[in-house]
Amino acid sequence: MRPGIATLRTLSVFEDLSIDLLEKVDRISNLMSLEHGRLICEQGKIPTELYYVLDGQVALSTTAPDGTRAVVEVIRPNGDFVMASVMACLPYVQSAHVVQRARLVAIEAEAMRALVEQEPELASTLLRSLSRDYRSLVRQIRDLKVRTTAQRLGCYLLALVPDPNAAEADFRLPFEKGLLAARLGCRQENLSRAFATLRDLGVETRGSRVRLSDIPRLTEYSMPDYLSDKELSKADQALEATAEEVSVPA
Amino acid sequence: MRPGIATLRTLSVFEDLSIDLLEKVDRISNLMSLEHGRLICEQGKIPTELYYVLDGQVALSTTAPDGTRAVVEVIRPNGDFVMASVMACLPYVQSAHVVQRARLVAIEAEAMRALVEQEPELASTLLRSLSRDYRSLVRQIRDLKVRTTAQRLGCYLLALVPDPNAAEADFRLPFEKGLLAARLGCRQENLSRAFATLRDLGVETRGSRVRLSDIPRLTEYSMPDYLSDKELSKADQALEATAEEVSVPA
Repeated sequence: MRPGIATLRTLSVFEDLSIDLLEKVDRISNLMSLEHGRLICEQGKIPTELYYVLDGQVALSTTAPDGTRAVVEVIRPNGDFVMASVMACLPYVQSAHVVQRARLVAIEAEAMRALVEQEPELASTLLRSLSRDYRSLVRQIRDLKVRTTAQRLGCYLLALVPDPNAAEADFRLPFEKGLLAARLGCRQENLSRAFATLRDLGVETRGSRVRLSDIPRLTEYSMPDYLSDKELSKADQALEATAEEVSVPA
Repeated sequence: MRPGIATLRTLSVFEDLSIDLLEKVDRISNLMSLEHGRLICEQGKIPTELYYVLDGQVALSTTAPDGTRAVVEVIRPNGDFVMASVMACLPYVQSAHVVQRARLVAIEAEAMRALVEQEPELASTLLRSLSRDYRSLVRQIRDLKVRTTAQRLGCYLLALVPDPNAAEADFRLPFEKGLLAARLGCRQENLSRAFATLRDLGVETRGSRVRLSDIPRLTEYSMPDYLSDKELSKADQALEATAEEVSVPA
């Protein structure tokens, strides 16, 4: 089933495209509804479709030669995935799984590449969109390279605090600690050590329950990006964190 | 001074563009020669130019709120930088420094965006080029998330071995250990611990001198990407590693 122009328009990447162009995109698109756990595409395979998320959530993960898997990103509504592989016409570098029942727009890869060649408006729209995705990966690399696991965990916990002005907070961890470690890019024993480090900064945990008793001190220690990056508000980062409150199928 | 069409053609991104289009690119381009240590562009500033490296090398680094700097990539001849920021028209997320005397093509950002809007051939060419850059960042995130520092160091040392079939090797580290730590994304004390871990796998160091006495065992332990990623040959990875044998100005 085709998504239709009204649905395509709800995706911010397409909101400014002409009706004429949207009709061309619609003709090569399909609407998909997928249950939790479904594999959408697999690392190493040649891309057949480009995807946009309308509802639900999709985790992108990538596997190293020894089988260890890293969660690179969780894609929320309005986000795309595998665009780089589709446009470069190279095998997927990531696998995609549904982690929360999802509705997707799937656009045929080959037809999309052909359309991009003909339509400068579409090509420059996609170029801007991929550019934003690229920048978020640069930020993630910075995070992985300059912060300790304890600081990354601190940033993550701070992003879960609902009130931006709160000095203390009490909440439940969104998922079990094994997955949290994968999300932060560390091994589970390092996550435990990181929680131990943060104890001195007022972070208490009991099971999945977390209590932050000195948010200003934790902020000073963890140095979240919104302290220096004008593009990011605290709310944006909170949104990014809560987007990942889902479980990734093994 | 304009680079001229022949020079632009030496960049693989432009090699298939029509003469007509190359002339349009040439009209908005300048040739630059820069000494070691020169700052080319600065994180947080709005982009004015898109760059391609003709000769020499440029390091891209990004600074966290506490001033810690991470080296994200070193760009070699034929590579571009800041394309994502130019195309999205958003502040640079990275700073760029010359780390080896460089000759660059600098293309005016605003004029380039205007040209991309009019020329589907150019837009889709840049889209493919950015897609390849994006995929290399995904691989780097995987590396940072799934490998221990000792494994990352092992992969790095293996990439410095000139003979792909060698069982042992003896060489000099391309730069001092502080910079090697930044390149691998760890603190210096962790780098020392990683060297200690690798000692049991036949890795001996004395100053900057490294001896690998059991390459098959080190390979098995470090799990370099070329074991599973058909796109990458061992030679490619060696090239990537040696490209970074330069010093980044502080």
